[in-house]
Amino acid sequence: MNLPTSVRLVEVGPRDGLQNEKQPISVADKVRLVDDLTAAGLSYIEVGSFVSPKWVPQMAGSAEVFAGIQRQPGVTYAALTPNLKGLEAALEAKVEEVAVFAAASEAFSQKNINCSIADSLQRFVPLMEAAKAANVRVRGYVSCVLGCPYDGKIAPEQVASVARELYAMGCYEVSLGDTIGTGTAGKTRSMLEVVGRDIPRDRLAGHFHDTYGQALANIYASLLEGINVFDSSVAGLGGCPYAKGATGNVATEDVLYLLQGLCIETGMDMDKLIAAGQRICEVLGKANGSRVARARLSR
Amino acid sequence: MNLPTSVRLVEVGPRDGLQNEKQPISVADKVRLVDDLTAAGLSYIEVGSFVSPKWVPQMAGSAEVFAGIQRQPGVTYAALTPNLKGLEAALEAKVEEVAVFAAASEAFSQKNINCSIADSLQRFVPLMEAAKAANVRVRGYVSCVLGCPYDGKIAPEQVASVARELYAMGCYEVSLGDTIGTGTAGKTRSMLEVVGRDIPRDRLAGHFHDTYGQALANIYASLLEGINVFDSSVAGLGGCPYAKGATGNVATEDVLYLLQGLCIETGMDMDKLIAAGQRICEVLGKANGSRVARARLSR
Repeated sequence: MNLPTSVRLVEVGPRDGLQNEKQPISVADKVRLVDDLTAAGLSYIEVGSFVSPKWVPQMAGSAEVFAGIQRQPGVTYAALTPNLKGLEAALEAKVEEVAVFAAASEAFSQKNINCSIADSLQRFVPLMEAAKAANVRVRGYVSCVLGCPYDGKIAPEQVASVARELYAMGCYEVSLGDTIGTGTAGKTRSMLEVVGRDIPRDRLAGHFHDTYGQALANIYASLLEGINVFDSSVAGLGGCPYAKGATGNVATEDVLYLLQGLCIETGMDMDKLIAAGQRICEVLGKANGSRVARARLSR
Repeated sequence: MNLPTSVRLVEVGPRDGLQNEKQPISVADKVRLVDDLTAAGLSYIEVGSFVSPKWVPQMAGSAEVFAGIQRQPGVTYAALTPNLKGLEAALEAKVEEVAVFAAASEAFSQKNINCSIADSLQRFVPLMEAAKAANVRVRGYVSCVLGCPYDGKIAPEQVASVARELYAMGCYEVSLGDTIGTGTAGKTRSMLEVVGRDIPRDRLAGHFHDTYGQALANIYASLLEGINVFDSSVAGLGGCPYAKGATGNVATEDVLYLLQGLCIETGMDMDKLIAAGQRICEVLGKANGSRVARARLSR
């Protein structure tokens, strides 16, 4: 049971988090959040999404956010780009790295992006080519890896198949998302064992939701399986669109606390991270979703 | 990495939980809670405490609660008894099993019960003798096993020493409590390795608080170390006296969800458990502290 000596946290709060918050938020507050997260030592921040504001109004102004942030050397500022048009807009905004998104569930793919998994992957081909030509790395997300809100159970082989296609297509890393947070440590382990047969474990990331309180146990199980990249959202921003009032993305503070307790290097500063999360919660007028932040701030 | 095939959950909500809730609660509501928990399939319920109501007003009426509950065969209904006087009152109330409480931290022992660890253990001697004579089993708690609100770090050897004394004194099981919830999976593992040298692992229980969101990761780490008894509190009753507004005892629903996901047998019914927790939260007028309950009830 060896643990990795260092872990990279991919901060998804400004994109995946804010996208699911109802309260509108200004470009200036988004810029401040990203700068605060940079100051807290995060080395990878998903800043925004280049997608039609008709579909995702919360992500309007991503180009302005990219123009406003203070980029620091050694930090990757990434954006989600669902298609070639999004990639072109991202390149124009001088985005250094992009991400694409597929589902491990046929029903989720249909309901979420209105096409089959195979079609969604096919649509990434021109994007991947253009990204390669522009020397921009592409990260792949797979959603519903431990369960689907429509289909229920998802076979690990199905996850492996989608992850393998993204990897073969040129994604340098594939993030495996428990979108509805129903997964437990045992399922996490079995899924990683299967996916890990085709893709080196240092090319996989874990993306866990805390809806059922299982995220940190799943992350610990993943660490024991050799995974050393995890997505998380400061202050647990984002909630869960499939269970109103419930928790969504695992809070970055809580993951960092686990990693620090395991003496795993992250290069991060807990106090600055807590301050960043508390500030954006005050802007949004919502309770802080990090247990560590709540415990620390209430002492 | 073998997991146990079955786990016993020790429900501490009616005692450890309600003791730390500010809202007063009637004997009838306590009885209803215990009966609801019995119906949910718990095989061990800590019903109350025989202690001066001057010190712990929330535990007044424990004898009436024991008189009012519908005891079911195969279920243990236990009480906390800090001293011989408490044990005598418990025996009068036909309590089947009792528990005693020591700290792994000298400062915590002094502040909490106003005596040294050694003195607190010495005071249990007549209680242990009387319990043995009455054929009543005694469970031992050790608090602050992964950290102390006053002393900070606690050495695993110190935990082992107190646990060993309780075990040698006749406690059939020793529950190791992370009273302030600051422990992480790595510390949990190291502590269990040390304590497990002196006491068989099937005589140890884990008692985790979720104040920093770490409880389920710690329980998963404990399962991997061969621990198969865990204390938990329905709906996370109890809060944390050391961080106002923060979470305390891990919620029974969240632990059960983890165990069910690992295919570990508990004999419990999730729906009935969620209903029991939600009912007592409505009585107390507080938000449900279980993430699983919140997710399920919001669907």
